[in-house]
Amino acid sequence: MSPDAFETEAAAIAADRATGAADLARRALAALAESARAAPADDVGGLRALLERRAYRLADSRPSMAPMATLPRRFLQALGAEEARDLAQLRARAAEIAESLIERSRGAAGEAAAAAARRIGPGRTVATLSDSSTVRRALAHLAPDVRVIVGEARPLCEGAALASHLAGEGIEVALVTDAQLALAMTEADAALIGADALTLRGDTVNKVGSHLLALAAAAAAKPFFVVAESFKRWPADAPAPVFEEMDPAELGHRLDAAVRQRNVYFETVPAALITEIVTEESV
Amino acid sequence: MSPDAFETEAAAIAADRATGAADLARRALAALAESARAAPADDVGGLRALLERRAYRLADSRPSMAPMATLPRRFLQALGAEEARDLAQLRARAAEIAESLIERSRGAAGEAAAAAARRIGPGRTVATLSDSSTVRRALAHLAPDVRVIVGEARPLCEGAALASHLAGEGIEVALVTDAQLALAMTEADAALIGADALTLRGDTVNKVGSHLLALAAAAAAKPFFVVAESFKRWPADAPAPVFEEMDPAELGHRLDAAVRQRNVYFETVPAALITEIVTEESV
Repeated sequence: MSPDAFETEAAAIAADRATGAADLARRALAALAESARAAPADDVGGLRALLERRAYRLADSRPSMAPMATLPRRFLQALGAEEARDLAQLRARAAEIAESLIERSRGAAGEAAAAAARRIGPGRTVATLSDSSTVRRALAHLAPDVRVIVGEARPLCEGAALASHLAGEGIEVALVTDAQLALAMTEADAALIGADALTLRGDTVNKVGSHLLALAAAAAAKPFFVVAESFKRWPADAPAPVFEEMDPAELGHRLDAAVRQRNVYFETVPAALITEIVTEESV
Repeated sequence: MSPDAFETEAAAIAADRATGAADLARRALAALAESARAAPADDVGGLRALLERRAYRLADSRPSMAPMATLPRRFLQALGAEEARDLAQLRARAAEIAESLIERSRGAAGEAAAAAARRIGPGRTVATLSDSSTVRRALAHLAPDVRVIVGEARPLCEGAALASHLAGEGIEVALVTDAQLALAMTEADAALIGADALTLRGDTVNKVGSHLLALAAAAAAKPFFVVAESFKRWPADAPAPVFEEMDPAELGHRLDAAVRQRNVYFETVPAALITEIVTEESV
């Protein structure tokens, strides 16, 4: 992967507003695997230095997303323990490490999704928000014997994509504005969201609106589940998460500049509002 | 007001998605005043019957909005007590009754707004949602020594109009998506909303999202105020409120018909979450 091609891919990952944290981190690992195979390097030391630079470049580009902090660091840790006899062998081993982490992440998400589906059980109505790939997988385990209410997740409304996907899978689905989430929880049996990060204190960082959904679930005395692979635990050795605030133009209002428009993407759901964080370790 | 002109006005009131309950009810009274002056009627009995029909036509057109139930009924009550010696006198008296109720409603809202401004006090940050004319008046009492965070109120985002108005008044204002209301309450000192109806049990009916804002206020240990004229108390002799659900096309998503899109406009904020309902009687 040439410096130009890598920069293009890194910029695309940094700019992606609709894809979840785990999918983006796996895409970052794929860029590292490709870099390992084909980036310009003269020797073992040169390739190690280049992969380290690229791994941190990717990790730092999405400071709210734990897998973006975790998986590139795991890649570098494993690479550091690797003793390669030459450049060709290091290229192959580094690519294998990255691809194996992609598989482990995908597998962990799948196990977490299966465990979450068992927690919810058949015949229920589930409220969610935004479009988490792990939530998609959990709901796939329950299909078609589940009904889903999806909050659209302003500003980009990726909840609409989830609703369309679920309808295509034969699941009965309703799409609501985020403002209707309290009403949704009066009809739902449980809430289920994914996570961008799990903090050391047991809180969950996820798309803004998740805290409101959790408050509504508590008010309606319904369980609130988070489903996430354990790679979403915020690493103790990474900088603290920074909640990304995006371009206010995404809100779509044309207003006088005197009106400040806020477009914060992520927020923390306090541990006290979470019934259970279901990971692949919860089985 | 000819039958055609009245029908046009009644249909406009029924279709108005952006104007608050009190303003719409005052517009309904204005239509009754004009009907009293100029609707076709042969005698006193004919005018009384026509005004009764028109009053109920207006009241029934917005079944979530208490002033639409209250004010036309007050008009008919006062008209029933009126002994007019001829058609001309009845026309004049009926118009005066309607116009006097408009003035009383406006005055009550003004007094409630002043009382709410005193509850909040100067130098505070206030979170609100949608665009209540009574909230506008309360904030005008505090201007410019107040900061406001406004939830946009999907789907039509009339909160953007409030934000623009406040900025024009020199008030520091931020507009946020409804999904950011929990974050907003961590920055705000208090929440303040208007009401479409005050129920006999002490609950408040208002734009959907209000319940979430109230839950967020409680979670942040901040007071949650409702400001409303007492004409918003749901009349005991009116049919129970029906929460209007509007055209899903307003959400602006183009989705497969298998996705049900919900567009409920109103919801109930339970009394337990309300610090105080401030009316003109609260002074």
